[in-house]
Amino acid sequence: MSRPNWQHQTTLSKIPATSSKPIVQHSSASASSTTAEVMSADNIKTEEFKLCDAFFKEIPPHADYDESMARVKSFIQNSNPVQRFVLVTSGGTLIPLERLMVRYIDNFSTGSRGAASTEYFLEAGYKVIFLHRAKSIQPFARNIPPPLETLEWEGVAAWAVSRDSAKVRRILERYAKHKASILYVSFESLGDYLWYLKGISCELNKSIGHRGMVYLAAAVSDFYVPSSEMPEHKIQSDTKPTINLALTPKMIYPLATIWAPKAYIVSFKLETDSEILMEKAQKALKTYRHNMVAANLLTTRKTTVTFVESTGKVARIDNPEETSDIELLMIGFLRDRHSAYLDANS
Amino acid sequence: MSRPNWQHQTTLSKIPATSSKPIVQHSSASASSTTAEVMSADNIKTEEFKLCDAFFKEIPPHADYDESMARVKSFIQNSNPVQRFVLVTSGGTLIPLERLMVRYIDNFSTGSRGAASTEYFLEAGYKVIFLHRAKSIQPFARNIPPPLETLEWEGVAAWAVSRDSAKVRRILERYAKHKASILYVSFESLGDYLWYLKGISCELNKSIGHRGMVYLAAAVSDFYVPSSEMPEHKIQSDTKPTINLALTPKMIYPLATIWAPKAYIVSFKLETDSEILMEKAQKALKTYRHNMVAANLLTTRKTTVTFVESTGKVARIDNPEETSDIELLMIGFLRDRHSAYLDANS
Repeated sequence: MSRPNWQHQTTLSKIPATSSKPIVQHSSASASSTTAEVMSADNIKTEEFKLCDAFFKEIPPHADYDESMARVKSFIQNSNPVQRFVLVTSGGTLIPLERLMVRYIDNFSTGSRGAASTEYFLEAGYKVIFLHRAKSIQPFARNIPPPLETLEWEGVAAWAVSRDSAKVRRILERYAKHKASILYVSFESLGDYLWYLKGISCELNKSIGHRGMVYLAAAVSDFYVPSSEMPEHKIQSDTKPTINLALTPKMIYPLATIWAPKAYIVSFKLETDSEILMEKAQKALKTYRHNMVAANLLTTRKTTVTFVESTGKVARIDNPEETSDIELLMIGFLRDRHSAYLDANS
Repeated sequence: MSRPNWQHQTTLSKIPATSSKPIVQHSSASASSTTAEVMSADNIKTEEFKLCDAFFKEIPPHADYDESMARVKSFIQNSNPVQRFVLVTSGGTLIPLERLMVRYIDNFSTGSRGAASTEYFLEAGYKVIFLHRAKSIQPFARNIPPPLETLEWEGVAAWAVSRDSAKVRRILERYAKHKASILYVSFESLGDYLWYLKGISCELNKSIGHRGMVYLAAAVSDFYVPSSEMPEHKIQSDTKPTINLALTPKMIYPLATIWAPKAYIVSFKLETDSEILMEKAQKALKTYRHNMVAANLLTTRKTTVTFVESTGKVARIDNPEETSDIELLMIGFLRDRHSAYLDANS
């Protein structure tokens, strides 16, 4: 994998760090892998591949899988030869605790990051496959005020938006401009998500190559209940249950090396403990061989994102006053990194 | 507790069972308790009370609890002396798996039943305290079509609803009529929910007495992770975790006997297995001493609800064609049972 020149990225870093305006700070770090580390990681990988295969054998795709993949293929194939595409994954995956599901383990992800990022990818010229948790936050719709509180009756078929009228108008105009450039694919469970991730990234790799990006903003469960341990009916409430979880195979390694080796792949790390965040981000790049990690802390994720690239460079994006979405800065930064990656691979 | 004459309920039962129109069928059953059963149940209860106390000692209320309870008191106290009130609980409770919560166990409840029921309680003349899971389905708003797909720009501050315009108009009109009669209180976790259930039902009992109803449509977790077993930070993904759950104390017994003994209390049973549904409904009434169980099967809950009263009577409500919400029939039925209960206790 080539190493684009990081110094192309200087526009935003000229803003002094004391400014309250959005800033991107660059520094060097030690995320690049030594040969010994890679070789040691490779032993782990063979085992990980087997676990991935076993997962897909154990858990079937969603009933809509074939129909959704046909839509993906049609969306990708009717594009011009310089068009960039991004697969944005968004929202949390649930893991069922029963076969006839009543209960499940979920995480707090709302899909806010993926939905906002999708808008800025569209405005940066990308076509977006928006792979999202059903009923998670949606691009454009996310900023429309609740109708019950803002709509007022005004004549036979017209509604006056008493507040936020100009804002809603801008949203609808942006949506109308971009709606043909977004394809919606929804999931609920971990299994459905991973099947789509594999299918869509393979399709991107085949048809789009280096012009494709995979932006892994979804909060994927680290654990699941194996089919063999799952009861058929609702767990009864007369005894204390114990839930034994299995580890979800790390799909990012087959993603980066087999499914979509040409795509520019960005993963996310979210932690509550700042001590382990950067360590885990750098370890992930060494282990999984993808291009970029966006590292977040739960408490500051709306104002600060630290990007760590496989080249070893680190860039911090700050948006202290939240006057606009931090995703605007993030996507601008990633678009430029993707350009450098394309240049290096052309 | 008095036993109102079930035969007052004849209006809907005259419709023959073969009709495709909504029907209510009545029959007798054996839900009434023998003295021996009650005495045996009482031994269990002492232990259950201790568990409830321990739960409230272990898990503190939400930071907004005092402010929300002040709103509840103000809402209840400014009413006329014949006004009926209902506490509608709606949506699912989550149980955190970490103190700084990233993951949780949830259930599939959307809040659809509680939101629809709230509308029909309002139209039946009740004031409603709508204790709901944050972001669950809301009364009135539930039927407004997605704005992004239905709004069109038409001039400076007016939006044309291209479809469903008359429908949206009726919703806004109904909302405007009833909005002063509904008080919103939201929760997310099991602990927050149970604190509000206790606080609000005690307040109803004190100020409203028999004119109060408690309608327990929320899907309350049967299990939780005790504070002592909960890690501070996100569970790390390098080992297979085992989650040991404790049983949630059955709060319906203190609710029916201590917090709100005067209120008319309706609980719900939802099962996936029809074999155990009626048995569990009848057992619940014997054990917890409340007034009514609405029994549902997961697969048919939109078309059939079976009401089992503490008097031993059983009524089935069918809404086979779903031309209107089944909650319209359910609330009409419960309003009449509540009237009979009020007559018997006046």
